[in-house]
Amino acid sequence: MPAPTSLSDLRRALETMPQPDVRAIAAARARDAVLTKPPGALGRLEDLAEWLAGWRGRVAVDRIQVAVFAGNHGIAARGVSAFPAEVTVQMVANFQAGGAAINQLSRLHGAAMTVHPLALDRPTADFTEGPAITGDELLEALLTGWAAVDPQADLFVAGEMGIANTTPAAAMAAALFGGSGWAGRGTGVDDAGLARKEAAVAAGLATHAGQLDDPFDVLRRLGGREIAAMTGAYLAARMHRVPVVLDGFISCAAAAVLHCARPGALDHCVAGHLSAEGAHGRLLEALGKQPLLSLGMRLGEGSGAALALGAIRGAVACHTGMATFAEAGVSGG
Amino acid sequence: MPAPTSLSDLRRALETMPQPDVRAIAAARARDAVLTKPPGALGRLEDLAEWLAGWRGRVAVDRIQVAVFAGNHGIAARGVSAFPAEVTVQMVANFQAGGAAINQLSRLHGAAMTVHPLALDRPTADFTEGPAITGDELLEALLTGWAAVDPQADLFVAGEMGIANTTPAAAMAAALFGGSGWAGRGTGVDDAGLARKEAAVAAGLATHAGQLDDPFDVLRRLGGREIAAMTGAYLAARMHRVPVVLDGFISCAAAAVLHCARPGALDHCVAGHLSAEGAHGRLLEALGKQPLLSLGMRLGEGSGAALALGAIRGAVACHTGMATFAEAGVSGG
Repeated sequence: MPAPTSLSDLRRALETMPQPDVRAIAAARARDAVLTKPPGALGRLEDLAEWLAGWRGRVAVDRIQVAVFAGNHGIAARGVSAFPAEVTVQMVANFQAGGAAINQLSRLHGAAMTVHPLALDRPTADFTEGPAITGDELLEALLTGWAAVDPQADLFVAGEMGIANTTPAAAMAAALFGGSGWAGRGTGVDDAGLARKEAAVAAGLATHAGQLDDPFDVLRRLGGREIAAMTGAYLAARMHRVPVVLDGFISCAAAAVLHCARPGALDHCVAGHLSAEGAHGRLLEALGKQPLLSLGMRLGEGSGAALALGAIRGAVACHTGMATFAEAGVSGG
Repeated sequence: MPAPTSLSDLRRALETMPQPDVRAIAAARARDAVLTKPPGALGRLEDLAEWLAGWRGRVAVDRIQVAVFAGNHGIAARGVSAFPAEVTVQMVANFQAGGAAINQLSRLHGAAMTVHPLALDRPTADFTEGPAITGDELLEALLTGWAAVDPQADLFVAGEMGIANTTPAAAMAAALFGGSGWAGRGTGVDDAGLARKEAAVAAGLATHAGQLDDPFDVLRRLGGREIAAMTGAYLAARMHRVPVVLDGFISCAAAAVLHCARPGALDHCVAGHLSAEGAHGRLLEALGKQPLLSLGMRLGEGSGAALALGAIRGAVACHTGMATFAEAGVSGG
């Protein structure tokens, strides 16, 4: 498809998104059945091999991309984060210099990492007072994310950095799925900070009441640029048939926009991990995703998804490298 | 210490085993505190870095060893496995030729893999009728495992292959920790096979009643050579200060011998994964270990532990490669 230039183009993409290649899945399943192991003995590694086959047509991870998006949030002024807002731009420099956790994990797994700061000098508006960003800003962020995806990648991970961004993510989750209790401790706020986050989410929902039916409106009114960029990237990955590893709470809030706009829109995604952010498990459940890892991580940056690359690479190594029963002369195949 | 030559030497090793280096742990913790991330945000990766520091004196995984032990079991004749006994020797050939799952995972993580068949032409005796192996055979197996460990390794994984060996492992767990329900489906037995396993475990406990107080007697009477080799290897690793990643149910039954003989004997071990074998979670709980992964694997060979190497290597990459707050000019350190 031609590169999208409008929100309508993106909505149309959701209507025409490709489906998994059932023949490639069947071929992967047939090979798995004759590998030298009892049927099912590799557990979820077998599912991962089939999933990769379904989207890429083959079981391979030769080319892995990690894209980190960064944005600033007006809501930070409400004391919802344990860190000051200037940390966003400082961490972007750290990403560019190779010093952050995501740099190390990307290097470990041979992933190409790109960094995408989005208008860091223009924080979103305070969403308790009005829309976080304008329609033009939303489109720009979505298209930035879209353009960031390497169509040739065998796997795509999006990460984020944005001081205070668990608060907009919580507001988005509340708007998309209803209920309360979506706010969590983020990078480590105390009880008072958590109460401020909960209050901000409630105020945001009240301010935008009656205007949150369209998931893209939820993203524009309550979200932010780096979150919208992840949404755009996940959609682009689907259109390019690039499988995605979701990260933590913010990544899943970004993905949830697509899920709510179109059921099945995240079929190309696996959940990399369950983070320590309180409501992440609930959000994964709403998306119908079971996490690969659960190691108490809560860093963002794409770090949980990047760590899960080890399991996915393991799945590929076994599927492609193992001998068959016939090749190895093993009984029972 | 000089290489052990008797069971008494091994028991003495348990009495004199080294403890973690608290200064190295403190140094790792101090570095972790100034890395560019919120405190605790890497979750269990932070614990893993400290654990490695405690045993190796530094946070590194330059040298990883995977040793696979194989043995045959007389109990197989009782129809407790979904596969025929000749598969053990066939799979050893597959390990040696590089075609098994553990070969692929070892290669992925740059681990050196060794294969140790133990008297495959002499299966253990049927433990429902008498001791599985003699005292001499036990010692030989323990010392084979001991000698297999590379004292210079930064991480050690033991794997096993032995058709029917979840049955002796279940009998050992029952003898060491009491209770029933330790038998599971192994490589995939049906209900009738599971009932035969449960009956075999019960018969074994009855046959050896009153003679299972010493954990090494449990290993000799109910276990098997490859299981004993793992026990010996885990003890050698402790004496050489080599950290260990435990694998599934059989690996943990082998390790449980040390745990029951001497509390704290597994402080140098982490649990690589929770397998799909029914009672593995209960066994891990008895050992006080929380698994790193839970991906429904039930292959043995050390495959779950080898997959967990990805998380451990990620922990090392972050700990050693990340910039500090001061280096990166990030606020909040």
